[in-house]
Amino acid sequence: MTIQAISWSPSGAVRIIDQRALPEAEITRDLESAESVAEAIRQLQVRGAPLIGIAAAMGLVAATREQRTASRADFLARAKEFAALLGAARPTAVNLRWALARMLRVADETPGDAGGADLWERLRAEATAIWEEDRAMCRRIGEHGLTILADGAQVLTHCNTGALATGGIGTALAPIYLAYERGRKVHVYVDETRPLLQGSRLTMWELVHAGISCTLITDSSAAALMRQAKIDVVMVGADRICANGDFANKIGTYGLAVLARHHGVPFYCAAPWSTVDVTLADGDLIPIEQRSPAEVTMIAGRPTAPDGATALNPAFDVTPARYVTGFVTDRGIVQPPFSGGESQS
Amino acid sequence: MTIQAISWSPSGAVRIIDQRALPEAEITRDLESAESVAEAIRQLQVRGAPLIGIAAAMGLVAATREQRTASRADFLARAKEFAALLGAARPTAVNLRWALARMLRVADETPGDAGGADLWERLRAEATAIWEEDRAMCRRIGEHGLTILADGAQVLTHCNTGALATGGIGTALAPIYLAYERGRKVHVYVDETRPLLQGSRLTMWELVHAGISCTLITDSSAAALMRQAKIDVVMVGADRICANGDFANKIGTYGLAVLARHHGVPFYCAAPWSTVDVTLADGDLIPIEQRSPAEVTMIAGRPTAPDGATALNPAFDVTPARYVTGFVTDRGIVQPPFSGGESQS
Repeated sequence: MTIQAISWSPSGAVRIIDQRALPEAEITRDLESAESVAEAIRQLQVRGAPLIGIAAAMGLVAATREQRTASRADFLARAKEFAALLGAARPTAVNLRWALARMLRVADETPGDAGGADLWERLRAEATAIWEEDRAMCRRIGEHGLTILADGAQVLTHCNTGALATGGIGTALAPIYLAYERGRKVHVYVDETRPLLQGSRLTMWELVHAGISCTLITDSSAAALMRQAKIDVVMVGADRICANGDFANKIGTYGLAVLARHHGVPFYCAAPWSTVDVTLADGDLIPIEQRSPAEVTMIAGRPTAPDGATALNPAFDVTPARYVTGFVTDRGIVQPPFSGGESQS
Repeated sequence: MTIQAISWSPSGAVRIIDQRALPEAEITRDLESAESVAEAIRQLQVRGAPLIGIAAAMGLVAATREQRTASRADFLARAKEFAALLGAARPTAVNLRWALARMLRVADETPGDAGGADLWERLRAEATAIWEEDRAMCRRIGEHGLTILADGAQVLTHCNTGALATGGIGTALAPIYLAYERGRKVHVYVDETRPLLQGSRLTMWELVHAGISCTLITDSSAAALMRQAKIDVVMVGADRICANGDFANKIGTYGLAVLARHHGVPFYCAAPWSTVDVTLADGDLIPIEQRSPAEVTMIAGRPTAPDGATALNPAFDVTPARYVTGFVTDRGIVQPPFSGGESQS
């Protein structure tokens, strides 16, 4: 039984699992305004590039609920304001802006005689479609990724790219879920992923929950495991993939890519095609979110560094395309360059 | 003013700073028995290969204090028991066994008519000599290392190799302390060093204390910094160096070595010559301490992974000699192979 990271509450609010509280507590929150959804995204209550796209789309629906009696023009004006607020919550993942642009386009394209209620119904259907498509995309990523997971494979992963990062069974974890479903043996080494420990808090929680064999390691242990030939394949997610195949993902991904190359270990990036941003030629153009140094200098509210310590805390790094064995997408295992047209389906 | 990690208390006990409590609290402890010193070493109240050698030697003195009225034979028998207990506290660092062997040899070589009191005085002098030699060695390492630190150098370091790891100004930090003393500009990037955070808790504490410019990073950020050309040199310590130059150091060191090689960044290992263990031909022979998984699955007493999560927690990894630009020792910057004879001075 896969975890449901997001859903509609009975009253039409966006219901999320507050991922900050995991693994100690399972807390769900019902969010009804654009501001509360944006705040949840900023604070990483919901995170993972695909999931924040879904959350933003659903958040736009919840936020415009009260505009159902408004005129078309007023509804659209308010929807654009809410979308701007939601879109500014985090800068790196392209899915957030992609989902919101799709929602606004659908509203704009609704016939001119439609009122607020019609527009809102159209948005709700579109948000649900985005979510359902994501769930289907996860399974397709899983099917394609399954072809590279031999029976007995030992997989190294980083951060969280599973059910807690998507509307379905995840991106980089999707092939692992499918392998397990089909009785294929896999073992997952999970980088704890400092500073916010998405690996230990979220990926381990998902995998233990699902009964999948897994071992937690500190981020800096990966190199020694590769040298000991304990890693058959590295599988990570992506927050944004450029036209040339450079991609942004959780800080630490680039180091794993270099280490994998050095040890001859295949290195795959798994992501829905919607993560590809053909408007960016290469990775130097990806905006990298710098988060608070306090995430590095404090753990669980206690200081781990002395007063006056300064820290760097980039949320992501960029991995050049040349380190990537293949991109596991819902369209198959593909190679850059990626071109435009229907790319942002 | 450099921190004093170890000293004699007025009553002759071994006075240590309890490094587990840093940076939140500065707690000193006076240890009077072999068991309490061994416990302090096991629990990492005192850590750092050179410092645990000094602590063991001083611990042997404190423990044999009550044997001053014993016969020569009884004194030696008890001293050997205490040394065995102290020597078993941690398996990887060679300095611990080296210091104890030196202490026992001195006791054994004391003339046959010497009683317990004479033997004890001889041990006390030898422990103090080991400590003073270490202090002088740190400065010599610093002098040699200074030749590779250009003005304005940006240095990456891992774990703690400073005043809290030695009897003096450290090993890999010694050149940085000397550069600072002499008005040379240096900036230090400090890996936090999971799981026990010796980088954020101890190295940052030392450097902020000394007024040296430093920035804390998560371990997995180092690769991105190297790619951005922000690291001019990597400088790490060692817990044991083999005859062929392979060496054990804090988990994560090997990954840094590979990343440095990949980015063309010089990678130096700084250690006193006493860290060389010519009895081991290569790194495969170094025993690697496996510590409790709870150090990875809990932080500050709170679980960071779900119930039932398994974790690997090797304290060290082995870096093959071929990744090392040079070994910065008290005898100069040297290259393997290292040969025996007077090696364990």
